[in-house]
Amino acid sequence: MPAMSKTSAHPLAEALRARLGAADVLTEPARIAPYMTEQRGQFPGQGRLVARPADTDEVAATVTLCRQHGATVVAQSGNTGTVGGGSPRHGDEVVLSLERMQRIRSLDADDGLLIAEAGCTLADLQEAAAAAQRFFPLSLASEAQCRIGGNLATNAGGLNVLRYGNARNLTLGLEVVLADGRVWSDLRGLRKDNSGYDLRDLFIGSEGTLGIITAAALRLLPPPRSRRVALLALPRLEPALALVRTAQAESGDAVVGAELMSAEALGMGQRLDDTPENPLPGSPWYLLLELATADPRADLDEALAAALEPAEAAGDLADALLAPTEAAAERLWRLRTAIPDGQKRAGASIKHDISVRPGYIAAFVPEALAAVTELDPAVRPCIFGHVGDGNLHFNLSQPEHAPPEAFQARAGTFHRAVHDVVRRFGGSVAAEHGVGQLKRDEVARCADPVGLELMHRIKHALDPENLLNPGKGAAAAHAASAAPPGSGAPS
Amino acid sequence: MPAMSKTSAHPLAEALRARLGAADVLTEPARIAPYMTEQRGQFPGQGRLVARPADTDEVAATVTLCRQHGATVVAQSGNTGTVGGGSPRHGDEVVLSLERMQRIRSLDADDGLLIAEAGCTLADLQEAAAAAQRFFPLSLASEAQCRIGGNLATNAGGLNVLRYGNARNLTLGLEVVLADGRVWSDLRGLRKDNSGYDLRDLFIGSEGTLGIITAAALRLLPPPRSRRVALLALPRLEPALALVRTAQAESGDAVVGAELMSAEALGMGQRLDDTPENPLPGSPWYLLLELATADPRADLDEALAAALEPAEAAGDLADALLAPTEAAAERLWRLRTAIPDGQKRAGASIKHDISVRPGYIAAFVPEALAAVTELDPAVRPCIFGHVGDGNLHFNLSQPEHAPPEAFQARAGTFHRAVHDVVRRFGGSVAAEHGVGQLKRDEVARCADPVGLELMHRIKHALDPENLLNPGKGAAAAHAASAAPPGSGAPS
Repeated sequence: MPAMSKTSAHPLAEALRARLGAADVLTEPARIAPYMTEQRGQFPGQGRLVARPADTDEVAATVTLCRQHGATVVAQSGNTGTVGGGSPRHGDEVVLSLERMQRIRSLDADDGLLIAEAGCTLADLQEAAAAAQRFFPLSLASEAQCRIGGNLATNAGGLNVLRYGNARNLTLGLEVVLADGRVWSDLRGLRKDNSGYDLRDLFIGSEGTLGIITAAALRLLPPPRSRRVALLALPRLEPALALVRTAQAESGDAVVGAELMSAEALGMGQRLDDTPENPLPGSPWYLLLELATADPRADLDEALAAALEPAEAAGDLADALLAPTEAAAERLWRLRTAIPDGQKRAGASIKHDISVRPGYIAAFVPEALAAVTELDPAVRPCIFGHVGDGNLHFNLSQPEHAPPEAFQARAGTFHRAVHDVVRRFGGSVAAEHGVGQLKRDEVARCADPVGLELMHRIKHALDPENLLNPGKGAAAAHAASAAPPGSGAPS
Repeated sequence: MPAMSKTSAHPLAEALRARLGAADVLTEPARIAPYMTEQRGQFPGQGRLVARPADTDEVAATVTLCRQHGATVVAQSGNTGTVGGGSPRHGDEVVLSLERMQRIRSLDADDGLLIAEAGCTLADLQEAAAAAQRFFPLSLASEAQCRIGGNLATNAGGLNVLRYGNARNLTLGLEVVLADGRVWSDLRGLRKDNSGYDLRDLFIGSEGTLGIITAAALRLLPPPRSRRVALLALPRLEPALALVRTAQAESGDAVVGAELMSAEALGMGQRLDDTPENPLPGSPWYLLLELATADPRADLDEALAAALEPAEAAGDLADALLAPTEAAAERLWRLRTAIPDGQKRAGASIKHDISVRPGYIAAFVPEALAAVTELDPAVRPCIFGHVGDGNLHFNLSQPEHAPPEAFQARAGTFHRAVHDVVRRFGGSVAAEHGVGQLKRDEVARCADPVGLELMHRIKHALDPENLLNPGKGAAAAHAASAAPPGSGAPS
């Protein structure tokens, strides 16, 4: 593999400049710095070259030139990921940024079909849909910055999964640049096609290791015409899931969000100046429910009352409040969305993005709490998440008045303790954020080895030279788990 | 490869008997005959051995013994497929029947989770769900006979796809016996898991060529509490999709079925003695709408009225009728479900299971009609299907009073003519029935060669010895298309 010099005169940079134009092949340290690490700075990368192709042909040309020059390729779009999946690791990795590919190629409101390039931000797509009286339901905290290519590469979840599914469920087709520089394209917008293996869902969630998603055909829905947001205070965790399920049935599947929050997590959000006060203090658990429907005749209040009254009568609901206006609904939501930033104010944190069968959540939480308090009784759990999907952000904040570094240094110990409980409940240690670099070793430890080996075979079949995002994701986890101790995991 | 003798004394049969018991290894011609061909008799197979394992371990042992004896394996469950995917082709193919694996391993109504073995009939699963006050939405004409293993291997569609999706969308996980006899199992019932490539969706729809599905974790939903069925008579085809989309929006996505029928197709159903008369004669197109919801307060009649009134005012709706009782609803549905059997009474038929973007249906139909009437002006088209999904059964019946064999002999010519129009519209020639043997050559001709080549690589990665269902499906289509003319496609 030719060594890449520190100047911009190395052969690959020259070749890329000849193809993409000089302005979109970056090598100056100050200009490439933002592409080298993810937002939390946890995975500082050593790459020296950023290519910013303008279209699919240029992506294909970039991949081909990298292969010819012995360089590997890390695709990056919004760079908002949390697991280090989009950061380069070595100097011979080229960051292929999709940020210039921002075209909406077509939007057909009647057909509910949006074809967009990978560099469109999620917010851009939401707005384009709304302008056509349609609705693109994917919604994430980072929606102003994240881009649809990364959303698809990580099969992003977010706040509406309960009703509309992950990014996967909103996608009808993809355009993908393969490791050999060819393009596989299915942007036909078909709703049904059983003419072969499901390549679409194989690329979705593969974290840039099987191909580079350059465009997608996405489903648009009728926009909701009514919406209700309620905050429920629960005397205990056990009835939370049944409440969600009852609300789903009573409303004809109109529950779009169901966010569980521990009192401690809600309290973390209160550390921010702009967070409203908790209007229902004193309960150990809270549930934020949002119902929405395109049906103009639906009575969501009645549906909610029908779901809550039996729980109230059974003592499973301490109190509940409904937002009477849109602004009040936003204030209730802010109780939930403030938690991640609020947690930052509480010092160092160790995070877990886990899922178990939804019905196991109530049994999982006390066991996982016991495991972490056994390690450190002063640890401050900050538990919130998507209870209807069985997906919790089982986060931990450092003990008060303790040095952050000491807590952070124990991350691996806490990860293993929480993930061991996840394993006992047959859960996943990477529910919605992907594997990237952060989860690679824990996936290697916790996931089914037969599945990992199959993923490794598929990776080898589609990218035999290990050109695309090497060392990331589950296929790399197989390599890590299969390597003999001390040999160093192959990258 | 050891030749298999015609007697039951060949070594593989003996080895299988030692493992499965003599009663479930069949070699007598009269006993194996029902497994050798599909229901229409189009793909008479030459296999000589049927193994009926009782559990996953026995499936794994059967696969291993077949491999050791140089035999290939065709998985079969209900044997109701229409494309020859479950029929053996050669004498060295062993039919592995999953019909004895009929256990429901668990059913959790609160969690909406059913874990069932591949040999359960679809009707059994529907009934088990109903007994637990839950609903399993997959619904097909053959539901009393078809088994969930085959439904998943073919990603079955059916009558409810518009609202609930294909078999794929109702599946949370699988247990699969691999080509090397290992078992990959994910029956954890997780709603969210981004810890690796999407193996589940790769196996679903792979027609037994990548692994043998032995069990599945399936989603259960709240049962519908109200239901409305309406027949709409349309003066022309163009407004059909907009009517469906408006009904979806007005009802809060409660349209579970939207079946388009040409007057000719509806007339075919009238050939059966038990079919009710068409209550709205005289229109060229009909739409059967079913709305259903779990919301006890929903007013489906109002939603339907809101969807139909603008169409009526615009002259896009000739007439409409609502079924006032369950029995009346069944009679309206019978107009649609009678079509396939009615078409049999009209002599030889040539069928196409195609999809295009839903918005292209109205333009596709006249072009495809022109293509077939150019070949034979006396051909009788019988067009019906799932218009909201863009999936039509574009079937043709022979000219009246003509010899059936002469028409059947032209099947390839008609297939190519219809599929050429499908290609022009960017559609699929195998929308919901799979590829099997029937569609292999047309998929080879019409599908994207890059995609076929990727499928072939995946097949080779997971089944390097081509042990599982050789010669079927899209990966085999690649082999067929890649073979030089006259060389014979590799099996």
